[in-house]
Amino acid sequence: MTTAQPNARIVLQQCLSAKLMVQPATEDEDAKYVHIERGLVVYVCFLQGANMDYIEKMVKAALNTRLSSTENGKLVSILDLPGDVLIIPQATLGGNLKGKVMQYHRNIKKEEGETLYQAFVDLCAQTVQGHETARQCSVKAGTYGNRQVLSMDTNGPFTHLIEF
Amino acid sequence: MTTAQPNARIVLQQCLSAKLMVQPATEDEDAKYVHIERGLVVYVCFLQGANMDYIEKMVKAALNTRLSSTENGKLVSILDLPGDVLIIPQATLGGNLKGKVMQYHRNIKKEEGETLYQAFVDLCAQTVQGHETARQCSVKAGTYGNRQVLSMDTNGPFTHLIEF
Repeated sequence: MTTAQPNARIVLQQCLSAKLMVQPATEDEDAKYVHIERGLVVYVCFLQGANMDYIEKMVKAALNTRLSSTENGKLVSILDLPGDVLIIPQATLGGNLKGKVMQYHRNIKKEEGETLYQAFVDLCAQTVQGHETARQCSVKAGTYGNRQVLSMDTNGPFTHLIEF
Repeated sequence: MTTAQPNARIVLQQCLSAKLMVQPATEDEDAKYVHIERGLVVYVCFLQGANMDYIEKMVKAALNTRLSSTENGKLVSILDLPGDVLIIPQATLGGNLKGKVMQYHRNIKKEEGETLYQAFVDLCAQTVQGHETARQCSVKAGTYGNRQVLSMDTNGPFTHLIEF
């Protein structure tokens, strides 16, 4: 259920493929990207009040909810599809509209957010790794604090919001 | 402010370009697509309780909020950027997580949602048309009730949620 003051938000989109920059280009090196095939894009935002107790239920919601459509049109979890997972830190999801600008007063402090983000990514990877049919699937993740340069193809994003 | 029971939701993502199917292929015809260049992707969902009184404030929030970054890094509205707008009906945004499935009990009835969606699209087009610098920009919209086959490139989606 949506609460008046969520402590974390995830937005989920289905994709056929997606590509995300994880390191911008430097003078010496090209930008680095990660890539997934058919799967789930998970945008993650932690607000004040979020802590390590949230990680397990957030990962469960992302990976166990039946949001992915099989060839027969049956809805299954991304683990049971099985499909890849691309996790993207997205602090802008914590914004509240005030007049003509978004304010981010309720976003968690950067260091705390980074710790929680890393825990979320690690538990996703571990969960996929421990799942019989999803084991061969990729879990990729954006770099916290970077600009999230993303491209994706979908057969319908079927955008979902889940608050915690 | 997030309310316990929003009556409508929009999710906003910045894009460099985006392409959306507006008519699936038939035996005789290829699928039809609309396309925008640099601009804003607006996912729209109406819940029970939404009515025509919501349209103006929703369009204002989408088009007037300063979410788009200029070359100098200044945040301006999509009208002032100026940039294109792609509107996508996204009923899945109305879902509430219950166990391992999403329930859509609070989504508006299809006919009402379609009327509101069309009003939202029309007011967006009219607003862009009436804006001095945005007049040449495109407003494109997905077909209500269709599968929203979407591809997009971003330089950072900067995903925002606004509830009404």
